[in-house]
Amino acid sequence: MLTEEELAAPGATEEVVRRIVREELDRAAQRDAAARHASIIASKGTLDWAYPPLILATTAAASGMDASIFFTFYGLNIIHKDFERKLKVSPVGNPAMPMPVPMPALVTVLPGMGPMATGMMRSMFRGKHVATIRELIESAQDLGVKLVACQMTMDVFGYAQDDFIDGVEFGGAAAFLADARKAHVTLFI
Amino acid sequence: MLTEEELAAPGATEEVVRRIVREELDRAAQRDAAARHASIIASKGTLDWAYPPLILATTAAASGMDASIFFTFYGLNIIHKDFERKLKVSPVGNPAMPMPVPMPALVTVLPGMGPMATGMMRSMFRGKHVATIRELIESAQDLGVKLVACQMTMDVFGYAQDDFIDGVEFGGAAAFLADARKAHVTLFI
Amino acid sequence: MLTEEELAAPGATEEVVRRIVREELDRAAQRDAAARHASIIASKGTLDWAYPPLILATTAAASGMDASIFFTFYGLNIIHKDFERKLKVSPVGNPAMPMPVPMPALVTVLPGMGPMATGMMRSMFRGKHVATIRELIESAQDLGVKLVACQMTMDVFGYAQDDFIDGVEFGGAAAFLADARKAHVTLFI
Repeated sequence: MLTEEELAAPGATEEVVRRIVREELDRAAQRDAAARHASIIASKGTLDWAYPPLILATTAAASGMDASIFFTFYGLNIIHKDFERKLKVSPVGNPAMPMPVPMPALVTVLPGMGPMATGMMRSMFRGKHVATIRELIESAQDLGVKLVACQMTMDVFGYAQDDFIDGVEFGGAAAFLADARKAHVTLFI
Repeated sequence: MLTEEELAAPGATEEVVRRIVREELDRAAQRDAAARHASIIASKGTLDWAYPPLILATTAAASGMDASIFFTFYGLNIIHKDFERKLKVSPVGNPAMPMPVPMPALVTVLPGMGPMATGMMRSMFRGKHVATIRELIESAQDLGVKLVACQMTMDVFGYAQDDFIDGVEFGGAAAFLADARKAHVTLFI
Repeated sequence: MLTEEELAAPGATEEVVRRIVREELDRAAQRDAAARHASIIASKGTLDWAYPPLILATTAAASGMDASIFFTFYGLNIIHKDFERKLKVSPVGNPAMPMPVPMPALVTVLPGMGPMATGMMRSMFRGKHVATIRELIESAQDLGVKLVACQMTMDVFGYAQDDFIDGVEFGGAAAFLADARKAHVTLFI
């Protein structure tokens, strides 16, 4: 409250008002809703690229942020009921993929190289006690991460709503943007 | 306006000031410019990855946001005058690509597999009445989406300004950042 | 300061307060911390995709923004002490890669095609006087760009802290998010 002295001092009122305004602005900045939102698009359908959206969204939710993942294009694989069979990894065209031995591109396309890379990546993550995709999806749902499947690419790829795990919502690019425009963290993965 | 009673009540002035400040803050939040901006980078030059930046930017613009796409690296293909021939899709190295039959990596590199995948993807989108890339570009321009070609990668890849469709602007990373720093939605696609 | 007339005019106080509040809000918007932060994830480990995070972060820092890059998954290659040997580029699976002659997918996997594409891309950038990766990393460090290696993927891929160049910090997804939630520009590259 303004004290009687504050009001009485000549010219003091403006200073007092500025002090109040700054206090309110600081309070507003601390409750800045955008800093508490993360809106992530998951567009890749391979095992390696399934991790980043799930890890980032669960970490965000665990630290008190509202997080959502919008699954589109090949990313629909991640929330497909059959995701454990669908999520593979390919060394083809990714010379950065760590392989047990240096491997020319010609070898990476040989039969068996895809399954080998998929198995190797699974065991690398398991060996380091990183959660599996199944565990990450369960954590995401427990922590309230909103999982949304892109209706348009579902139509294009011929998926029905019950092809996906329970708890998934359905929406389009407009739904993603309505969420993302209120978020500082917006990532296309 | 402060009423005579508000001014007369002892200690009331601070409360009144706080009420005014909160009203102004709410007004400021509603006109929050960052929530009305989307700044998207399109860096991939294949048919599948041409859709997301165009769909997201046109959807944003259609819902009243300012949207811009910065085309860089392989993404320059999307606004090249010859984009319909340049935008292909390859099943190679993407085990998540939906194919009519399961296909080992070795087969995906065989002659004809790239054109087959490109044709299949075109007809999947057309079959579901999704706009073509040409239609999406036209919509983007009609809706005022700013299309910017990255000057540096144009130089590196040997493109001239008139290799691109009409209405494209030219700029560098600094131009993108000047735009993106004012936007909540910033995506690298 | 409020003048005697301002205070004396009946009903004037609220107008004066609103003027002060608006001045403070404009000042706050200009120092909007989020508009001065860029938080970038570098997740790809090939030569072509090493450029965008480094170019964007150094450009941001050069224009007075706080910039950080979080290197995760294959992106760890970029700050590995041996990055010049590790960063290659592959034409396999990327039909958008500019090649001297049109090349079917089958040819792109032949021995020599990867090294040829890597050499070609290096000389394209050098020919246009674009900084090398080494120069970009040095600029980033000179300009105060924070370089953070993802501890989790280091563990998974079997890297130790001294596998990386000097000056790199180490952290997890929570560290990235603590930074990114305060930034308008957040990109997953």
